[in-house]
Amino acid sequence: MSKSLLALAIIAALTATGATAATDQELRTKAAAVGLQPLPSTAPAQRDNPTSAEKIALGKMLFFDPRLSASGVISCNTCHNLGTGGDDNLPTSIGHGWQRGPRNSPTVFNAVFNKAQFWDGRAEDLKAQAKGPVQAGVEMNNRPTQVVATLKSMPEYGERFARAFPGEADPVTFDNMAKAIEAFEVTLVTPNAPFDQFMAGTDAALNSEQKEGLELFMQRGCTSCHNGANVGGQAYFPFGLIKRPGADVLPPEDKGRFAVTKSASDEYVFRAAPLRNVALTAPYFHSGQVWDLKQAVAIMGAAQLGATIDDAEAGKIAAFLGALTGTPPKVDYPQLPLETATTPRPQY
Amino acid sequence: MSKSLLALAIIAALTATGATAATDQELRTKAAAVGLQPLPSTAPAQRDNPTSAEKIALGKMLFFDPRLSASGVISCNTCHNLGTGGDDNLPTSIGHGWQRGPRNSPTVFNAVFNKAQFWDGRAEDLKAQAKGPVQAGVEMNNRPTQVVATLKSMPEYGERFARAFPGEADPVTFDNMAKAIEAFEVTLVTPNAPFDQFMAGTDAALNSEQKEGLELFMQRGCTSCHNGANVGGQAYFPFGLIKRPGADVLPPEDKGRFAVTKSASDEYVFRAAPLRNVALTAPYFHSGQVWDLKQAVAIMGAAQLGATIDDAEAGKIAAFLGALTGTPPKVDYPQLPLETATTPRPQY
Repeated sequence: MSKSLLALAIIAALTATGATAATDQELRTKAAAVGLQPLPSTAPAQRDNPTSAEKIALGKMLFFDPRLSASGVISCNTCHNLGTGGDDNLPTSIGHGWQRGPRNSPTVFNAVFNKAQFWDGRAEDLKAQAKGPVQAGVEMNNRPTQVVATLKSMPEYGERFARAFPGEADPVTFDNMAKAIEAFEVTLVTPNAPFDQFMAGTDAALNSEQKEGLELFMQRGCTSCHNGANVGGQAYFPFGLIKRPGADVLPPEDKGRFAVTKSASDEYVFRAAPLRNVALTAPYFHSGQVWDLKQAVAIMGAAQLGATIDDAEAGKIAAFLGALTGTPPKVDYPQLPLETATTPRPQY
Repeated sequence: MSKSLLALAIIAALTATGATAATDQELRTKAAAVGLQPLPSTAPAQRDNPTSAEKIALGKMLFFDPRLSASGVISCNTCHNLGTGGDDNLPTSIGHGWQRGPRNSPTVFNAVFNKAQFWDGRAEDLKAQAKGPVQAGVEMNNRPTQVVATLKSMPEYGERFARAFPGEADPVTFDNMAKAIEAFEVTLVTPNAPFDQFMAGTDAALNSEQKEGLELFMQRGCTSCHNGANVGGQAYFPFGLIKRPGADVLPPEDKGRFAVTKSASDEYVFRAAPLRNVALTAPYFHSGQVWDLKQAVAIMGAAQLGATIDDAEAGKIAAFLGALTGTPPKVDYPQLPLETATTPRPQY
């Protein structure tokens, strides 16, 4: 969306939402009107990747398997920790050789509901995303041929890939690894947040501060970018639409989606952050430099809306955002296949 | 045990066990006579640490919590991965700053049955052990005051420590952290291995190769050091009793238990490795330089028994050792407490 269109959308949002206190039912109606949606309790299978219990179980093993990394130390769960909100709570992740990644690790929870993956949307879906960190030199630092050799060296993986991808002559492939991980990640949905309960009709699911926060969230125009089931993650916007944040929050060398499209209009453009479980995923922004959710709200007000959101208002909005914390998936920690003499040795 | 006493013990073992093929019942009787014991399905609570469901649940959270490390990246489970045999399958572990630790990470499974913890037995029990890696500069690189500050910053931990240590005025302590981790680790027992089933009377639980391997394991004197419920882990012995292995396997700078006792007789003395689940925990020895279990068996034969164990015999013994793989504990991956504004930031 261009800057002028976005500004128009924000004005429209401001017009659509009133500034006066609304009843609970009015609040629900407004929220639905501006595109805030309850989170489905399950997500559909993804393009070109029919799901099955076998595929999900395989994907869970792969997600937790550090042997997908060259070192044998780093798994998907290292940076997308299912016990800490689906991310790692670091400014930017630590990867192979203790290198720091360039951007904050986004949560894997509800990622299936995003329009595309990564901060710049360079992966169209989760299976495309899954191939990135495995190969990134600053993350898992592995090569597809090495990953496939590792997986093929363990008979149990061979059997599990065959069951997850029936009828394929050579089921242990890098593509199928990514598809299995996607199938598991599709299950990482956190329904039943207080906001969802409220939208389903339970007035008391939000306290008065959270309701005021919801109203402010709509009134100030936050929902222009943060909408849909994932309260964001649906489209790309310039960070610093009105006023560019400082270099600590918006480092000049990271031009965001420009790296994907090479279009000048995409300089410093990022995917609007999905705000589900945002209270669990500090620090904030692609740079991971802001630890306080209230402060993040105030920065967004100034940068995107040209608005001064004072401390009390930011507190209310942050309280509402806390009502987007849902029920995390229950995950049995998997027992992983046994290595054999032909398993490539860890390289570290 | 001194070298001469150990040599006598081996001779006694050789006398006690015959070289002829035994019936299944004879094999069981012999195995029991040389001190091989079935693994109990549960372990008792430990000294000065009564157990409770609350304490175990807290310990599980701490075990998986990377925020016990200074960086916020490394948890107990990083090097004692419950999905890969309770260890990390690396020669020596990677820790803070991508440093390599000095010794191979031992499995946490059944560690409660060891006489003492670490390769040199320098921790008398699991709660003493748990404090080590948290503070080691090459591992989690944290300080007790920082760990306690981290835990106290999260209200859910405060509540959980209070429930796990009822009646204590200040329950969130470094000691109690270690006690909770111990309480969880006491549950990490892997009963019902084929060997245990065999000892309980199921002849078919071991195949003929494994039975021959068991017989060889006793006949050659392996059980002089590897006995008890954990098939090892009960006493200290010089590595290289008869013939010192090469510097790759026994690096001269690591003098083992000498560092604990400062007694010259403890140079290159190590705790006999517990062999439960040994098929899951390559690479082998404190140096982690041997990947093949058969090769490890042959090295032990030469180093400890002065015996040449040929490839066929090593294969049989390795097959028997494979029958020591038990049923791993089922572990639900825990949801960890939420950080707050006062939680110390990751240092990395």
